[in-house]
Amino acid sequence: MTSIGGCLLDLSGVLHVGNTPLPGAHEALTRLRRLPLGLRFLTNTSRTPHAVLLTQLNRMGLEIAADELLTAPLATRSALKQRGLRPYLLIHPHLRPDFAGLPRHRPNAVVVGDAGPYFSYQRLNRALRLLMDGAPLLAIAQNRYFMAADGLNLDAGAFVAGLEYAAGVQAEVIGKPAPAMFHTACAQLGLPPDQVVMVGDDVEADVLGALEAGLQAVLVRTGKFREADLYRLATRAPCHADIISFVRELETGMR
Amino acid sequence: MTSIGGCLLDLSGVLHVGNTPLPGAHEALTRLRRLPLGLRFLTNTSRTPHAVLLTQLNRMGLEIAADELLTAPLATRSALKQRGLRPYLLIHPHLRPDFAGLPRHRPNAVVVGDAGPYFSYQRLNRALRLLMDGAPLLAIAQNRYFMAADGLNLDAGAFVAGLEYAAGVQAEVIGKPAPAMFHTACAQLGLPPDQVVMVGDDVEADVLGALEAGLQAVLVRTGKFREADLYRLATRAPCHADIISFVRELETGMR
Repeated sequence: MTSIGGCLLDLSGVLHVGNTPLPGAHEALTRLRRLPLGLRFLTNTSRTPHAVLLTQLNRMGLEIAADELLTAPLATRSALKQRGLRPYLLIHPHLRPDFAGLPRHRPNAVVVGDAGPYFSYQRLNRALRLLMDGAPLLAIAQNRYFMAADGLNLDAGAFVAGLEYAAGVQAEVIGKPAPAMFHTACAQLGLPPDQVVMVGDDVEADVLGALEAGLQAVLVRTGKFREADLYRLATRAPCHADIISFVRELETGMR
Repeated sequence: MTSIGGCLLDLSGVLHVGNTPLPGAHEALTRLRRLPLGLRFLTNTSRTPHAVLLTQLNRMGLEIAADELLTAPLATRSALKQRGLRPYLLIHPHLRPDFAGLPRHRPNAVVVGDAGPYFSYQRLNRALRLLMDGAPLLAIAQNRYFMAADGLNLDAGAFVAGLEYAAGVQAEVIGKPAPAMFHTACAQLGLPPDQVVMVGDDVEADVLGALEAGLQAVLVRTGKFREADLYRLATRAPCHADIISFVRELETGMR
């Protein structure tokens, strides 16, 4: 790992699980902030708005500034604003604050997040009709499923795939593993991608996605990590026991 | 067109539209029945059960015997019975009679039809969990959408694609354009596929599907036919104005 100027960290599974910080997370953050490094935190979470997430993290003692936290929903909001799009939002009502104030009349874009039970047939049909009229399909993320109290639940990716098939279009994915979010973070740090390292517990979304986007990457054996991930990782990126173990090695390399 | 021993006809758009027979449909059927031909009628309709469809057709004066009518739902039922599968049915309640009597406890297969508003998040999650446990995914059909009174509506194919993506599996498609339904019809007629001709208004499901399955095929310019279909058809199969025009040419060829 050479000439690292920036470090991007996934949140859930790397620094905390639920409302509990992972062992070494506080210390890792403190030590990272002492290094000559730009820091950003990247998450695909699409049921919790940015402001609420920030409060939750700070309550856990993980002190993160608002502009250090990049979420897939806010990245989607930026893309909509930049392109002057009026979204039809297939999202969970909890996430509405992240899209407040955007024009919504006569929508000309479809945004899909983890809407859960709010994926009704009627709303999906509305999305289909807009897509057939030429509206672009923006996927906040394309995760397949997640574990909930009642068992596995379909995540946004399933409905993105269904709409893609029906309308014969291809979604523009905003969240990890799509390159856009990684590149936005690098641009904010003023660094070329190859001088930035992404650290995550999701071999596909965090590690392989970052490598694909030209960044360096590190997998940690916490959160959703499974031994089988090592087969997918192969020799393409290093794997660390946890975040603190990664930080120690980074410090050694930078001495 | 040589040595034709059997003829398969699509229904909606070829012999009728809604509850109205198409011009020439009655005469075409009468003349077809005078030829030395086996006849079968093939439809993907997945909201109307076999018995109701038969009644509707006969009310229009299109006299068709029960064993001449092959529907994708009944083909799905046969596949389930043959393989001893207990289905979890993601179908419209109207279609339930076609699956009556099959074992349903502890389902070990997922069947997807055009369930319309009965595609709830909860039911889709139930299907996902079964697929993740290894249950096969049977798609009655994989049509993309259909036109309804309120505009375009998502058809079964969208939800099949979503479940395929989420669970990382591939559906087994039973209806047209999958080869199974064409081959079942040929087997019933005791004919090799190349001696059977399929006539339809859907260039993909009827014509290209039949050609792929080794049958001969003819496109008619009625029903959902659009000029653009001719580009997809190219020189792979002939195109006729309507069903009666096809029958006249068939008679000439068989003289």
